[in-house]
Amino acid sequence: MEPELHPDVAALACLLGTWSGEGTGHYPTIEPFGYREEISFGHVGKPFLAYRQGTVNRDTGLPAHAETGYLRGVGDGRVELVLAHPSGIAELAEGSVTVTADGLELRLTSTSVTRTSTAKDVSSVARTITVAGDVLRYDLAMGAVGQPHQSHLTAELRRG
Amino acid sequence: MEPELHPDVAALACLLGTWSGEGTGHYPTIEPFGYREEISFGHVGKPFLAYRQGTVNRDTGLPAHAETGYLRGVGDGRVELVLAHPSGIAELAEGSVTVTADGLELRLTSTSVTRTSTAKDVSSVARTITVAGDVLRYDLAMGAVGQPHQSHLTAELRRG
Repeated sequence: MEPELHPDVAALACLLGTWSGEGTGHYPTIEPFGYREEISFGHVGKPFLAYRQGTVNRDTGLPAHAETGYLRGVGDGRVELVLAHPSGIAELAEGSVTVTADGLELRLTSTSVTRTSTAKDVSSVARTITVAGDVLRYDLAMGAVGQPHQSHLTAELRRG
Repeated sequence: MEPELHPDVAALACLLGTWSGEGTGHYPTIEPFGYREEISFGHVGKPFLAYRQGTVNRDTGLPAHAETGYLRGVGDGRVELVLAHPSGIAELAEGSVTVTADGLELRLTSTSVTRTSTAKDVSSVARTITVAGDVLRYDLAMGAVGQPHQSHLTAELRRG
């Protein structure tokens, strides 16, 4: 039986389910690239959503990025993200969720980016996620490998 | 088609699949407790395993802990763990894997434990995981909420 959604994540309800779509990435240190992406959000009745994401390179079909973690509702429209990256990076971010007419807007800024010994140097991440009906869009900005914080990824996914 | 396992995680191959079993927990600040647990390790052909875990309280059947992240093979028997906890904690750990006659032994010590604004105070985590045939056992020690680093969890799971 599906548990009832915890009231602390009620504002995030429209994220629940799976999403698939495409995105593009660019950064001063690499060639621009395109990717296909699948995202899922689930819950177990506690005050967080479980989040998983995976991308494949649009040209080769090979696995590219992935990330997994939790989106916590902590009251007063505030949310916290705890995220593990297979590149050796752990990201903590905090921000706000705003419920809109047909979805939400979520703005998250990293409060901590930590790295294992062999991980690439990422210093900051900012995410804006919007849901409008059955469309989820996000923008991700990143400071990494000595470059200033700047736009890195943008994607559009559809529910289903 | 299942991709080939990346050579950097070959020593971790016996972890792949799903495991279920039971564990017990204790800590000076809480009542001892029992839990049922399911763990899974997967891979996509890259030099890491994706790890997911969930427990339910043995008495109530309700979801208890969960964690999700990645186990990276970084060469020379060294491994790195990047882990997100829904309690608002991100854990980075490093250590070694030793291949045994019928499994492995994995020893990991946290190098960083970071927390969101509302998370509980966890300061250190150490994990020992052994696989012997179809049995996976782990011990987890933790320093938290002002208590010294000490034994917290022990569990035994079976493959399948």
